[in-house]
Amino acid sequence: MDPKLPIGIFDSGVGGLTVYRALHERLPNERFVYLGDTARVPYGTKSLATVERYAVENSRFLQSHGIKLLVVACNTASALALPAIRNAVEVPVVGVIDPGARAAVLAADGGQIGVIATEATVQSHAYAKAIASIDPSLSVIEKACPLFVSLAEEGWAESDVARIVAGDYLSELKDTSVEAVVLGCTHYPILRKVIADAVGFDVKLIDSGEATAGEVELLLDRSQLANETRIFNQERQLCDDLDHFYVTDAAARFAKVAERFLGLAPSILEAVEVWGHDELRPQ
Amino acid sequence: MDPKLPIGIFDSGVGGLTVYRALHERLPNERFVYLGDTARVPYGTKSLATVERYAVENSRFLQSHGIKLLVVACNTASALALPAIRNAVEVPVVGVIDPGARAAVLAADGGQIGVIATEATVQSHAYAKAIASIDPSLSVIEKACPLFVSLAEEGWAESDVARIVAGDYLSELKDTSVEAVVLGCTHYPILRKVIADAVGFDVKLIDSGEATAGEVELLLDRSQLANETRIFNQERQLCDDLDHFYVTDAAARFAKVAERFLGLAPSILEAVEVWGHDELRPQ
Repeated sequence: MDPKLPIGIFDSGVGGLTVYRALHERLPNERFVYLGDTARVPYGTKSLATVERYAVENSRFLQSHGIKLLVVACNTASALALPAIRNAVEVPVVGVIDPGARAAVLAADGGQIGVIATEATVQSHAYAKAIASIDPSLSVIEKACPLFVSLAEEGWAESDVARIVAGDYLSELKDTSVEAVVLGCTHYPILRKVIADAVGFDVKLIDSGEATAGEVELLLDRSQLANETRIFNQERQLCDDLDHFYVTDAAARFAKVAERFLGLAPSILEAVEVWGHDELRPQ
Repeated sequence: MDPKLPIGIFDSGVGGLTVYRALHERLPNERFVYLGDTARVPYGTKSLATVERYAVENSRFLQSHGIKLLVVACNTASALALPAIRNAVEVPVVGVIDPGARAAVLAADGGQIGVIATEATVQSHAYAKAIASIDPSLSVIEKACPLFVSLAEEGWAESDVARIVAGDYLSELKDTSVEAVVLGCTHYPILRKVIADAVGFDVKLIDSGEATAGEVELLLDRSQLANETRIFNQERQLCDDLDHFYVTDAAARFAKVAERFLGLAPSILEAVEVWGHDELRPQ
């Protein structure tokens, strides 16, 4: 495998840009190819079979574009479809659940852990299982926060509305004095301030994207896949023309929400079809 | 065409149940086949090409199940994809935009009309064009209210949060003293109270679903497609076993939100795949 190949990232939509940002900050020598499945977003209210099918199609699309490693930025896809994705592609695959769970166990230091995520992720209990596999004695409270995604995408992240919704969703976590809370959906770091306000500022918030970036760095080093030579003759910037962004629909809306999330829109953004990459569904 | 055949209704998801309810109330002698494309919901943030593709697949699926008439309950699909749907199927097709526009013109009585809808419907200006084709002198203000869908589906319809969001979205309509407001998305009737509160209780709210039910009744009569004989030996109820509901994904969530919207869940609810019905994408 050529270490100069880019790292693939896929997400159900625009939320994975928070994972892209974390990877970009930690790995300035790497290039990224991002796919947002905006034609079929959101995944968080959909079933196992459907999320698996979409995730496999996305992963095959990215593999066909030449990547050395695949990051599944979407928590729902990581929770439900990691085995199916690993079966479908030949590159190493990293999801966000296990890194987030490990970071939460460290941060909680034996205390209770809260997990906030989409309905599908919560119903899968993927974080609770991952945490239990590290330390079965830890107590975990999971809570779905379905309105958070729209609030983040529509620009209400720091509004009174977001504060009321967060207060409602997170009252149980606050009352039970959790030590750490996993932001188990890529959109939630955008609402970090109102979440911190709702659970209490002493509670540690775990950004699964940041935890994943750390694990990707380790994995690249161990497998000698890191791009050691500084091949780029330009200062890296978020969304610069060394990174390539694909969406399955509505590129204009993606660019608008990307600006809201990252402060700027991708230089290279292209709308594509991914469904032909699933061998079960020829075009 | 056999008048005893059911009427097909498709929607991007669960919102079209408000249109189903309006049709059911007005046409107690008719049976309905409802398809909610829950695997690909929402349509309101997606592009013309994608909405057209999904709408054609859904319409062909319903046609293949034997219907005498197709109601496109989804405002976004009605706004963007009606010509494509009419090309794709052989039964009469009724969208919700034209009936809603006609009802608004009548209700506004020469005054200004507000239209609230998804981003895609607003960007298509489908309601403004339909209103202008009836009376070009009428002034129309269109406003996208993207958070309303999640608020309705997640059970926040009568919350303070919904009131604040509605106040924000609808301040311009209130300030310009509109005479009537079109609820241009199937979810919005669920938020009728907070919308009325935000625009003022003297403003007439036009439910496009109700207007569409009236037009379907007329069309059935004119084309002699109405089921005149009372063939059912049971009292009709919403969601009873004479109506058949299909979803493309996550039937359990559909049933839960249906209960929230209608007070009860469908008796017959089945998950299906619709993509094979588009001749461009064989399975």
